[in-house]
Amino acid sequence: MSLQQFLGIDLPIIQAPMAGSQGSALAIAVANAGGLGSLPCALLSPQVMREELAALKAQARRPFNVNFFCHAPPVISEQREALWRAALLPYYKEYGIDASTISAGPGRAPFSTANADLLTEFKPAVISFHFGLPSPELLACARASATTVTEALWLEARGVDAIIAQGAEAGGHRGIFLTEDPTTQVGTFALLPQIANRVRVPVIAAGGIADARGVAGAMALGAAGVQIGTAYLLCPEATTSKVHRAALKSEAALHTAMTNVFTGRLARGIVNRIVRELGPISSIAPEFPLAAAAVLPLRAKAESAGSGDFSSLWSGQNASGCREVPAAQLTRELMRSG
Amino acid sequence: MSLQQFLGIDLPIIQAPMAGSQGSALAIAVANAGGLGSLPCALLSPQVMREELAALKAQARRPFNVNFFCHAPPVISEQREALWRAALLPYYKEYGIDASTISAGPGRAPFSTANADLLTEFKPAVISFHFGLPSPELLACARASATTVTEALWLEARGVDAIIAQGAEAGGHRGIFLTEDPTTQVGTFALLPQIANRVRVPVIAAGGIADARGVAGAMALGAAGVQIGTAYLLCPEATTSKVHRAALKSEAALHTAMTNVFTGRLARGIVNRIVRELGPISSIAPEFPLAAAAVLPLRAKAESAGSGDFSSLWSGQNASGCREVPAAQLTRELMRSG
Repeated sequence: MSLQQFLGIDLPIIQAPMAGSQGSALAIAVANAGGLGSLPCALLSPQVMREELAALKAQARRPFNVNFFCHAPPVISEQREALWRAALLPYYKEYGIDASTISAGPGRAPFSTANADLLTEFKPAVISFHFGLPSPELLACARASATTVTEALWLEARGVDAIIAQGAEAGGHRGIFLTEDPTTQVGTFALLPQIANRVRVPVIAAGGIADARGVAGAMALGAAGVQIGTAYLLCPEATTSKVHRAALKSEAALHTAMTNVFTGRLARGIVNRIVRELGPISSIAPEFPLAAAAVLPLRAKAESAGSGDFSSLWSGQNASGCREVPAAQLTRELMRSG
Repeated sequence: MSLQQFLGIDLPIIQAPMAGSQGSALAIAVANAGGLGSLPCALLSPQVMREELAALKAQARRPFNVNFFCHAPPVISEQREALWRAALLPYYKEYGIDASTISAGPGRAPFSTANADLLTEFKPAVISFHFGLPSPELLACARASATTVTEALWLEARGVDAIIAQGAEAGGHRGIFLTEDPTTQVGTFALLPQIANRVRVPVIAAGGIADARGVAGAMALGAAGVQIGTAYLLCPEATTSKVHRAALKSEAALHTAMTNVFTGRLARGIVNRIVRELGPISSIAPEFPLAAAAVLPLRAKAESAGSGDFSSLWSGQNASGCREVPAAQLTRELMRSG
């Protein structure tokens, strides 16, 4: 059975869930073009998640995917929080921000029983997880991300229906969950065939795939389908910010890095001032997702002045497929060969 | 004109030059099987280089490639040398090595007029360079490695005939030469199509390609041919050491890292004790190739005890194609589809 038959879609194209850069509109456009649209739920309140799921149910004529983060809730360290704010203090001064007003909210919630209840109600065809898996009682039909062969074997042993092989080229948060060592991260060209060699479930390639040539290359390497994120970021249906869109269109997009300065967890984005000056990997950034709270006021001030210096400019290593065209058109063109 | 026509070979397969793990025997076997065999000259004295070139001329029935390093000769820093030896001192003690007997020889020589004279004499069909290019008067027909889009544009502007897009997955020394920042290194899946989009010369893919599926994937992504190294390391014609062969056959090969602890320059190898304890990237390792001299006695002692703890176990991120079969057979099977 092909991945398309398995998921009930026409094209072996999955739109990557991109929390913060899209809602149901992008997912609906891709679903109705024959791919698998995805709704990222990591940043949504239960109320907004309910509204987005209702919109998808009403407007998507095909199956869609709902994505969750499965990190262990962080333990707050007063000491690390203090070190992190001290590192950010020069920037607070530069932007006239009163550091005492910044709360330490968590920002990204892991998958919970409340999420599970909403899924029971809306019954999305596909559920996917990043950063491992939830507890077995919350896990039914699912696919999940692996960034190493070891993670893929772990996921298969726990019964996932498909595995996303997330190569090191991929933008946004890395699915890495069995270690925190960034040297374990493998490029798509090496990761995909090695996972495909070792597991029996379908393998979906992610990382560096930006156009029809990339889709063909991934299929040649053993993928049952592909997951594409970055290429969709300039589509009108995405909610990508103005500074993020500008960065993706510039030569700056040629240099990305895996960094933990935005959330405390490894994620790939375009190198900007905060990545250059405090990262790319900071030993004092608080645990995921706590690092974000202290950075957000800087991001807001800088963006209001037209600067992306403190914004998470998520991007994979191949932004050459980003185009300002409707997501349905982009989806169809990803399958066009030659 | 195809890359095969351009180079005068049958298959679009280039055996990667692997200094320290092969000599003319591997290059002859690959050349006579229809690929482009390569002789790495970075570690060869002029006398040995002459002998190897003579062997190739006599036995290779097809064109071959001769490869050189083009690094700027290092400036010796007494301070860094002292720091490096201090870091290695606990290991010297463990192995009973008298540190005062260790010389600080350079080890790897950059391309020189002596090399150029040998090339004029032996006229190899292809000359390739790593770490940039030699001065224009030493450069005739050549191809060279790029690890970023920026490096590819630099090489094309200087007139190379073909560019090797060396993805981050590749084993051994990284060709990186316009910066020392490891975050600039891009995976093959992202690097190859972006370079192919921007240059007019043929692009040869390297990094993570281990079998026929990988060759097909690289061609789909826009490569004119592929360069493969790691997969050849277990062939009988390679001079790969015993500990290196054992590591490549083990699960340890799943975890490689870009490290500078062996030579002072970024190179990808299997993570072993010295990489784990002093690296992967050391800020005190002397400049390339000076870091090597102080590590070599440890390597020798450890290897004589059957241990690869201090050996450069070069490998790309995909060692799954390594097989103990003759290089001619491996070369032919790389083109076998399905």
